Amino acid sequence: MVTLKDIAAEAGVSITTVSNVVHNRTSRVSPERVAKIWEIIERRNYVPSMTARTLAKDSSSIIGVITHLTVQNLGSTMSDPFLSSFVEGVERRTREEGYFMMVRSVEDSQALDSLSRSWRLSGVIMTGMFQDDFFEYTRNLNIPFVLIDSYIDLPDVYNVGLEDEKGAYMATKHLLDNGHRVIAFASPTIQPGGVVEKRFQGYCRALEEYGIPFDPSRVFTQEITVEEGCKLGHVLSRRPEITGIVASADILAAGIMAGLRQKGVRVPEDKSIVGFDDNFLSKLTNPGLTTIHQDIERKGILAMNMLLAQIRNEPVDTRCVILPVTLVERESVRNLNA
Amino acid sequence: MVTLKDIAAEAGVSITTVSNVVHNRTSRVSPERVAKIWEIIERRNYVPSMTARTLAKDSSSIIGVITHLTVQNLGSTMSDPFLSSFVEGVERRTREEGYFMMVRSVEDSQALDSLSRSWRLSGVIMTGMFQDDFFEYTRNLNIPFVLIDSYIDLPDVYNVGLEDEKGAYMATKHLLDNGHRVIAFASPTIQPGGVVEKRFQGYCRALEEYGIPFDPSRVFTQEITVEEGCKLGHVLSRRPEITGIVASADILAAGIMAGLRQKGVRVPEDKSIVGFDDNFLSKLTNPGLTTIHQDIERKGILAMNMLLAQIRNEPVDTRCVILPVTLVERESVRNLNA
Repeated sequence: MVTLKDIAAEAGVSITTVSNVVHNRTSRVSPERVAKIWEIIERRNYVPSMTARTLAKDSSSIIGVITHLTVQNLGSTMSDPFLSSFVEGVERRTREEGYFMMVRSVEDSQALDSLSRSWRLSGVIMTGMFQDDFFEYTRNLNIPFVLIDSYIDLPDVYNVGLEDEKGAYMATKHLLDNGHRVIAFASPTIQPGGVVEKRFQGYCRALEEYGIPFDPSRVFTQEITVEEGCKLGHVLSRRPEITGIVASADILAAGIMAGLRQKGVRVPEDKSIVGFDDNFLSKLTNPGLTTIHQDIERKGILAMNMLLAQIRNEPVDTRCVILPVTLVERESVRNLNA
Repeated sequence: MVTLKDIAAEAGVSITTVSNVVHNRTSRVSPERVAKIWEIIERRNYVPSMTARTLAKDSSSIIGVITHLTVQNLGSTMSDPFLSSFVEGVERRTREEGYFMMVRSVEDSQALDSLSRSWRLSGVIMTGMFQDDFFEYTRNLNIPFVLIDSYIDLPDVYNVGLEDEKGAYMATKHLLDNGHRVIAFASPTIQPGGVVEKRFQGYCRALEEYGIPFDPSRVFTQEITVEEGCKLGHVLSRRPEITGIVASADILAAGIMAGLRQKGVRVPEDKSIVGFDDNFLSKLTNPGLTTIHQDIERKGILAMNMLLAQIRNEPVDTRCVILPVTLVERESVRNLNA
């Protein structure tokens, strides 16, 4: 069996250099040297084994990106097209740092336990809603982990989140500032402790500031799909008193706009709408969608950075990064004061 | 060290049953038995090791989903939001079959070689454009692999593709049947042997059938992003003679529509457009986008099924599955004959 040492000896370089080439960390190695090392590796048929290394180190260099499989989203945890930006950010950072990314949906904490133990995962990034006991369980696994968009109240937990409450507050206030007084809130089911609840609270806070009583008949919850958004557009077309809509995601806003259009309701002439995300959809809707901007790819990069700091026992400034939001004005809001 | 055998003995079940529970294949095990086995696993702190198993079997149960990192797409190989549907299909099938999914961008065949050897990958699914020598190289790795949307001409290669030529032919013919005679083709760079070239050929075939000479000034290539699509919309707004547009992707079509709108050009009154993909975008554009339908998630499922058949040495009916396309009519094409 050919070893790393044999390759290093023949190439006249250090074992570390060979290891770096094998694991594609070649930024500090000359192209000629990389080529030479690969030539030797291939000729001697050296097979660097991550699995042997894993057993020796008791850590696999695999980062698990975990999404939650629930009865509601069964089979479609990753169909959110915007998750791909997040995954891309994580994948790039794992590659740059000599790690590997495994993407997995888990239905419960046992599935995560099994995955983590089986593969000696180096760390875990968890996206989506999980129950509180899930996190307690994850802590007991004793591997570094970072939560995404979590509002779980546990000490020492790493989290990359967003100004969710503020974002929805800004969206609602923008409609209020433009003279709207009857404003709907459209979102998936509002679960305690989740992102959607925070956005809902932002909506309520803006209404309260303007002295507008909360009216539950103006809250509409449904799945975040184009089809459901479209149906909701039909429902809203029969509510002429509602002049403003805050949607908790751009894809929902775009679906609502399509549904309103099918019923002959014009945006922004008849109804104004503000989205949340500022992904490419907001540039494609007609009219362009006024929305709350967030940077999903950056979430992935930051999550991976926080995970690496834990794995390497490096100091971190904070365990909780909350990314800022901004309002991006396009053409979907009519100024009723004008 | 506690072994699988110890757990099986205490639970009074077979080693296979414990292994199935550990790897989450619990469909044939009663919930009570699953719970009992997990209780024993946790109490005795049994750690099933995939890495030990990998060394023993010389195969890791990891399926690599490989995208190609090129100078053009550097850092954004996975930002195509529709790749997530594909990845979801693969992930679900890996999970159902007791495999794991690693997602990775590679810049060259050496990076794939390194990944495959290091992890003893059980199989590889390759998406995106690769050079011919890349495939030769991959064949020499001697691991099962399946290509996605490849037109590589190698014997014995497994491929899941699409009726690309026919789809673009149908899109172009639909415009011709509706009286359009000056039709543009919009796509990313047309590379020999790639998906885009096949779609381009379908466009040319339809023109030829109608006796319309090919005019290179009607072919527009650019990156597939909303911004580039939008810019192309501006360019097309200054070409009044062009009444029909075939776009090789819905996201490009939607970008073009946004750009045309910014310049006051109406769809379908002034220009008609047909997309390709039929993803959720085609339902969100205003007007709704007439397009060619394909099922991306199904591509992922079929690719994984073909890979499993190879891994298990099961017979396969065919090494090459070509998924059908259909034309979905919405509102973006005007009938000039009417």
